[in-house]
Amino acid sequence: MDIYERLKELNIQLPEVPTPTGLFKIATQVGNTVYLSGQGSFIGDDWVKGKVGIDCSLEEAQRGARLCMLNLLAVLDRYLGDLNRVKCPVKLLGFVNGAPDFDKQPAVINGASQLLLDIFGENGGHARSAIGAGSLPMNIACEIEAIFEIKE
Amino acid sequence: MDIYERLKELNIQLPEVPTPTGLFKIATQVGNTVYLSGQGSFIGDDWVKGKVGIDCSLEEAQRGARLCMLNLLAVLDRYLGDLNRVKCPVKLLGFVNGAPDFDKQPAVINGASQLLLDIFGENGGHARSAIGAGSLPMNIACEIEAIFEIKE
Amino acid sequence: MDIYERLKELNIQLPEVPTPTGLFKIATQVGNTVYLSGQGSFIGDDWVKGKVGIDCSLEEAQRGARLCMLNLLAVLDRYLGDLNRVKCPVKLLGFVNGAPDFDKQPAVINGASQLLLDIFGENGGHARSAIGAGSLPMNIACEIEAIFEIKE
Repeated sequence: MDIYERLKELNIQLPEVPTPTGLFKIATQVGNTVYLSGQGSFIGDDWVKGKVGIDCSLEEAQRGARLCMLNLLAVLDRYLGDLNRVKCPVKLLGFVNGAPDFDKQPAVINGASQLLLDIFGENGGHARSAIGAGSLPMNIACEIEAIFEIKE
Repeated sequence: MDIYERLKELNIQLPEVPTPTGLFKIATQVGNTVYLSGQGSFIGDDWVKGKVGIDCSLEEAQRGARLCMLNLLAVLDRYLGDLNRVKCPVKLLGFVNGAPDFDKQPAVINGASQLLLDIFGENGGHARSAIGAGSLPMNIACEIEAIFEIKE
Repeated sequence: MDIYERLKELNIQLPEVPTPTGLFKIATQVGNTVYLSGQGSFIGDDWVKGKVGIDCSLEEAQRGARLCMLNLLAVLDRYLGDLNRVKCPVKLLGFVNGAPDFDKQPAVINGASQLLLDIFGENGGHARSAIGAGSLPMNIACEIEAIFEIKE
């Protein structure tokens, strides 16, 4: 199925591509492997911030992980020109700005993984690690980087 | 040498493949590169938990890193069907749930690296980073993700 | 332009390759993709240490990120035998030993990214994530791992 049709079905609108916060590119590529720079839990004025388990609830952090993934998909759309060129997501590395005793990082990052499964269906499965960061840029609740494979 | 013979020589039994704790696959692949999702420091009822340097000793954490690697190898065995298809480990990214002043992350992750060297011998060398996490899922002492190359 | 000429122009001398602090190789390769093990913010007796925002200033940490990159380039020079074999940097993963409320990780890692842009020019762009670690080996201020693509 056409990915843009699927996005419409799911009532998902891709955000503007975030302006890089440092001296880096939003995406690079080796062969069919596309590396996406880490994206944070904010879109426009909608920020999911703070230490999860203290300033930010698990549910809000999950929503933050979804925002990260929407940003990653916006980047991929810009980079590839056509999201239908995606073969599949390969791997996510998700960092959660958790309190020192926060231990539900996988549940947080599920907010991003679920979105991939919703959009890409049976091709949406991916490897993943979910880690607690000690701190994150601009005190965002989570940051996720991703690797995608594109079609030959 | 046959890897299963080598495991027998070393008296190593691979554990059951851990059930994913989130919406992810245990492994994915692009070309000959296999990405393994992060695995934690527990096998069955044997958990290595807590902040290393406070709740958990360095030695116990090293044992935890070994458990992570046993889990990763169990995943690889399941995913490939035959561990003899492995060409070599490529890279580990190891996270240690250390106290804020803990500074021996490389010694902890050596528990995983040593196991690779024991099993794969001269093919067991790999790149690696060892990082202190702020927190980890289920308060495990360490989590390691891995990249392996498989034979053509 | 010849990379060694460019280093001379920039008055940059590559340091000695750091001795690995654990059971790992400084670099590995799959196809044209080279994985470099995490390198820390010290060269010889010049250490950039401590929690950024408490023991270590942002400016000093940026200098630390530059030291990480100099170490990574020294590794790459040793591994490849000739830095002119580099096609481009692909991705950095930078960890900053920040205070729990430190939120300028991207500014710190810019110290490494700027060096790549200075040396490789229009080929120096790269994807990147900048994360706050909970702690780092030997209490260094930052650690960076890298992926490079080499020419066919």
